[in-house]
Amino acid sequence: MARDPKYDILFTPLAIGPKTARNRFYQVPHCTGAGIMSPGSQAGHRGVKAEGGWAVVTTEACSIDPQTESEPTHLASLWDDQDVANLRHMTDVAHKYGALAGVELWHTGHGTANLQTRGVSYAVHQWAPTSWKGLQAYSHEAEPEELKALTGKWVEAAKRGRDAGFDLIYVYGAHRSLFAQFLMPNTNHRTDQYGGSFENRARLWIETLTAVKQAVGADCAVVARFCVDQLMGPGGVEVAEDGVRFIEYAERHGVIDLWDLNISRYSEWIEDAGTSKFYKSNHQGPWIREARKAAKAPVVSVGRFTSPDEMVEVIASGQSDFIGAARPSIADPYLPKKIEEGRNEDIRECIGCNVCISRWERGARIVCTQNATAMEEYRRGWHPEKFTKTKSPSSVLVVGGGPAGLECARVLGQRGHDVHLCEKEKELGGSLRYITRYPGLAEWGRIVSYRELQLEKLKNVEVHLGLGEMTADDVLGYGADKVVLATGSSWSPDGMSAITWGSLPGADATTPAMLTPEQVMAGKEVGARIIVLDADGYFTGLAMAELMADQGKDVTIVTNYDAVGPMHEYTAEKGLFQRMMIEKGIREMTGHWLERIETEGNRLRLIAYDIYRDGYVRAPGPETGKPPRRVGTAVMPLDCDSVILVTARIANDGLYRALKERRAEWRREGIQGIYQAGDCYAPRMIADAIFEGHRIARELEGANPQEPLPVRREMTRWGPENYLQPWE
Amino acid sequence: MARDPKYDILFTPLAIGPKTARNRFYQVPHCTGAGIMSPGSQAGHRGVKAEGGWAVVTTEACSIDPQTESEPTHLASLWDDQDVANLRHMTDVAHKYGALAGVELWHTGHGTANLQTRGVSYAVHQWAPTSWKGLQAYSHEAEPEELKALTGKWVEAAKRGRDAGFDLIYVYGAHRSLFAQFLMPNTNHRTDQYGGSFENRARLWIETLTAVKQAVGADCAVVARFCVDQLMGPGGVEVAEDGVRFIEYAERHGVIDLWDLNISRYSEWIEDAGTSKFYKSNHQGPWIREARKAAKAPVVSVGRFTSPDEMVEVIASGQSDFIGAARPSIADPYLPKKIEEGRNEDIRECIGCNVCISRWERGARIVCTQNATAMEEYRRGWHPEKFTKTKSPSSVLVVGGGPAGLECARVLGQRGHDVHLCEKEKELGGSLRYITRYPGLAEWGRIVSYRELQLEKLKNVEVHLGLGEMTADDVLGYGADKVVLATGSSWSPDGMSAITWGSLPGADATTPAMLTPEQVMAGKEVGARIIVLDADGYFTGLAMAELMADQGKDVTIVTNYDAVGPMHEYTAEKGLFQRMMIEKGIREMTGHWLERIETEGNRLRLIAYDIYRDGYVRAPGPETGKPPRRVGTAVMPLDCDSVILVTARIANDGLYRALKERRAEWRREGIQGIYQAGDCYAPRMIADAIFEGHRIARELEGANPQEPLPVRREMTRWGPENYLQPWE
Repeated sequence: MARDPKYDILFTPLAIGPKTARNRFYQVPHCTGAGIMSPGSQAGHRGVKAEGGWAVVTTEACSIDPQTESEPTHLASLWDDQDVANLRHMTDVAHKYGALAGVELWHTGHGTANLQTRGVSYAVHQWAPTSWKGLQAYSHEAEPEELKALTGKWVEAAKRGRDAGFDLIYVYGAHRSLFAQFLMPNTNHRTDQYGGSFENRARLWIETLTAVKQAVGADCAVVARFCVDQLMGPGGVEVAEDGVRFIEYAERHGVIDLWDLNISRYSEWIEDAGTSKFYKSNHQGPWIREARKAAKAPVVSVGRFTSPDEMVEVIASGQSDFIGAARPSIADPYLPKKIEEGRNEDIRECIGCNVCISRWERGARIVCTQNATAMEEYRRGWHPEKFTKTKSPSSVLVVGGGPAGLECARVLGQRGHDVHLCEKEKELGGSLRYITRYPGLAEWGRIVSYRELQLEKLKNVEVHLGLGEMTADDVLGYGADKVVLATGSSWSPDGMSAITWGSLPGADATTPAMLTPEQVMAGKEVGARIIVLDADGYFTGLAMAELMADQGKDVTIVTNYDAVGPMHEYTAEKGLFQRMMIEKGIREMTGHWLERIETEGNRLRLIAYDIYRDGYVRAPGPETGKPPRRVGTAVMPLDCDSVILVTARIANDGLYRALKERRAEWRREGIQGIYQAGDCYAPRMIADAIFEGHRIARELEGANPQEPLPVRREMTRWGPENYLQPWE
Repeated sequence: MARDPKYDILFTPLAIGPKTARNRFYQVPHCTGAGIMSPGSQAGHRGVKAEGGWAVVTTEACSIDPQTESEPTHLASLWDDQDVANLRHMTDVAHKYGALAGVELWHTGHGTANLQTRGVSYAVHQWAPTSWKGLQAYSHEAEPEELKALTGKWVEAAKRGRDAGFDLIYVYGAHRSLFAQFLMPNTNHRTDQYGGSFENRARLWIETLTAVKQAVGADCAVVARFCVDQLMGPGGVEVAEDGVRFIEYAERHGVIDLWDLNISRYSEWIEDAGTSKFYKSNHQGPWIREARKAAKAPVVSVGRFTSPDEMVEVIASGQSDFIGAARPSIADPYLPKKIEEGRNEDIRECIGCNVCISRWERGARIVCTQNATAMEEYRRGWHPEKFTKTKSPSSVLVVGGGPAGLECARVLGQRGHDVHLCEKEKELGGSLRYITRYPGLAEWGRIVSYRELQLEKLKNVEVHLGLGEMTADDVLGYGADKVVLATGSSWSPDGMSAITWGSLPGADATTPAMLTPEQVMAGKEVGARIIVLDADGYFTGLAMAELMADQGKDVTIVTNYDAVGPMHEYTAEKGLFQRMMIEKGIREMTGHWLERIETEGNRLRLIAYDIYRDGYVRAPGPETGKPPRRVGTAVMPLDCDSVILVTARIANDGLYRALKERRAEWRREGIQGIYQAGDCYAPRMIADAIFEGHRIARELEGANPQEPLPVRREMTRWGPENYLQPWE
């Protein structure tokens, strides 16, 4: 099918300096965790996007010098020829598929602890950012001559970028980075030629842009990623002030071939990479529209764009010249191609959950809730849109239509198996049936709607709804060759957690005043004063609290963690959740847990204690039967009407256990294997449950699909040569 | 010089199964961050210990299978032949220097998120440990047949360990690991053959030990690392109960060639790797003595041993057969050789600060406060005891006798330069002159005492004390060829921090009621009600609070962080500091900072606010001059008599700046270069300041010693071969 002509505007080529982009789809720089150490994953992940129609693919931030790195999070670097060789694979694959390749050269100024190199980063001042939590990550307040030398390092890195085959060279100054620090009056208190006036604050960036343009401008486009508003009012960059001013100033210097514009609070990049919980698509639009008026060079900007019609509006209105995308390109590397082929409905839309970001922030490679193949392209050989047709088609029964089951059925179907997906409820979605009703999480419904449609298109997949709980008899008698159980997990009704390694005395969600999240969503009645007991640490406890606060309830969250929902530190949402709690009057008691819950008539009394109440001095030696520290007994009773238990999820593995009991019957019934995917094997994030459903479908023909096949490892490889130290 | 015969007992060989250790010095498994990805650093770090006389060197924990790994922290693995090849370099260098090499095979059970492999770890139950902070790191409650299969994986890994040349194969079950989870009644609630009775709880470990012994026992010694007491009273392992019981039981099975015994609370390994702040050397002794009675195989155990006399006592008393060491072997890889050579005073004693651990916990490679060469052996070619003599001896003036200056002078002296170390005070130590008087930090004085003695021994180093502040005139006229400034840092007197990117309104430590930590230690008077304002996040704020509480003051810590002293989460001391605070009545206000400090007569009023008080909904578009969120104005005034400002340190770079102003005079005065080492260049941890002093001394002859020389990188190296995806 050909594309609708109304989308033609998205497929018009456009020059970027000396290069030409084939269309308007532009994968802006984003972290993957591949960095420089996983050249195959780097090339694999960017490569499928080039193949999927993006006109430009770019790296993550790429350090120009060992004085600035981000260990333990993994970024790229262009420090030497080996880095050039490793990144060359990415540019080769981009070019092979007709895309331009860009590299985001980066220096972070104050903002790094340099745990890998032990170097000291130059910065505007020596601030140790609080994000390093006491690690004494001070930087060096660079002297003017050191800044000149630093510009030389930028040039050398830019040349290496050109030699690695990059078409676009970024001189990055957005978010919290060196040039932003110099530009922002808040952080620049210098009294030399690099501080004070606008020209002085802009000097370092302009000097560097000029030098890079001079060095590589004939061969490469020079790109500035610029935060046009830091959302801090005066003191930060404001779009109508220094935002527009810098764009005009740089244009006057003739050093910019493309503007990659965004907004972002200096220390909180959620304002750029906003989650769907807090931001709509194109939430940056009003700022970008203001800024782009000053730009002569083309503009790319992001906005979690997944709607082709919204993209047309962005280009047609002149807001931007390119549709920038990081997360939507991860969720669907084939987004451009699908529009081009007139099959918009096949777009696998980003849900805006920031799980990708969370993994990188934890020092790992990204994963994607929607796209299980993200970062698995090279090491597992998984293509997002191509599936190896099975040589031995089976009839496969998938039990459970939640995330894992949906994905497993979809991939099995793509691979040519005969699939029956059986769901006990009348609709698909599993836990998403209620999670999508949590405040702000409606877009997570795309997980289900995408897969539902894909299953409809697969002639070899049957979906059966409203079957009720399947029994072992049902499964054994179904007539399937293979069975994948994806029966999910349930919230513990008795306060189970790893804090107590078991249930919580007195906790019992079968009684009226205590509830699990599922019960809350099913409408079980709650009182006026509510405590949410949260050992889960992710979005559920906060959702329960917000739901209740929105209903006018008095809400307190009790958690063992130092902060409510600590996982949101990694999704970049922590600050917004904290602000939401304050604004909605949700109280918190952190660092506490419960001894027990006492029920007194209609009221509950929660016996809370500080998790560090024991003595700090240890007994000098063993005393059998007695802990060696003074056992703390101090408690703080908390009265409430209802408690919502967000302590742990429990695998729904009853069906598996029943089937296992009857293993002897499997062969008789023609069943070759029964496997578990997702939460019923071990409760996990939705992304990981989907991943497992996907993996089992890819690996179904193996000896034991429950066990992952080995992956191609990217690692330092030493041969048998003799190891010699320099002093030997 | 020969060793004193009283230490002969430490140098008696002893058999470990089929192998013989040449003496009693045993480097127990410890993390380095080298893992499998840095084979050179792995071999380099263990190699200098083999060279330094240790009879046994071992790896860190080494994963047996991709289902258990520790990303983002780096451990070893023995998953395939490449891992064998990479680890072979370590065993080769150990053998070259006469040491045995051991590998700590490891499976963590519940306790991993498997961010690298996306595998799901088998465990006793599916608990998601709270240490992953909401990451949903659930594990799979393994079925009996899965556990049998897992034992097969142990055997395969053990064989690979043997093939890599290891003499000792650990079947690790200490701390929080798979076998500990099964053994501990608290965490094992199983009702199958792996739960319930002691024999059932011990079954998995015994089965695995037996299988490994059978597979490799003829070639390798089999070692169990066992936590003989989990310090939790009944419910955990207690030494007199399951501790002794397990040892006897395993001995009856004849599967143990060596016991590596320790104690450790299940979730807090500070009880094993205790810091000097909270634990004396040999603090584990009473438990180990109890346990070893049951052991027939030899025993190794740790205790932060640095005193040769205490070591003799440990061996002679029968407490252990080997002196186990992790941290003391990092601080001084030559510890055994120094005792052997009769130069005990040259031992560079571990100070028990756990900075090593902190770096690994952050996902990086370890560093050591005392030994700047730790983990730099391979990549920088630094040997802890061998120094390249300079071919161009210079006269070098080192200004400042704090950690950086002391280390720089020492290494310059070792390298044959003519060194003058000039210190303004009457004693050496810099900031350590007062830090060592913080509660519990006396052992940190070893940083100074070790270096002071070494400098005394160096004939080419002169130390001049009590000179007062040196001026630019003093330096220019000194007659030195080169100058290294190591003038340290000072606590900001005006509440400077990265929270405000500047000073704090009203903060002024020149007034009577406000103090810096230095002023506190110098005896400036404090009132009865004290607030410690802490943006530093490490030990200083806590030390101030504890000092004051010990004097009977009323103390509150106000900090921007979620927890007081968040850096101690990484030194493993967090729990102990929290307990200390509760026990000593120190209150905390976390997540807050100050708008300003108001002085009202003798009293102070601190205007505190929640750092997340602004609105959570952003304006839809730019409004110049106004932040796009509701500006929070809520405050909480706090009254007190004194405030201690622990906000940021400021580099003492005045002398450097004065000298730089007069750069034109350098050549005339015969000065070839002036460099900065340590805090005066950028305030940092003591370990990093010492590192920089060391580095500049090693690299003094380079073009610009201020800039680190490139290091040998260990990385994935891809050549120019074509990159191909499997689907192509």
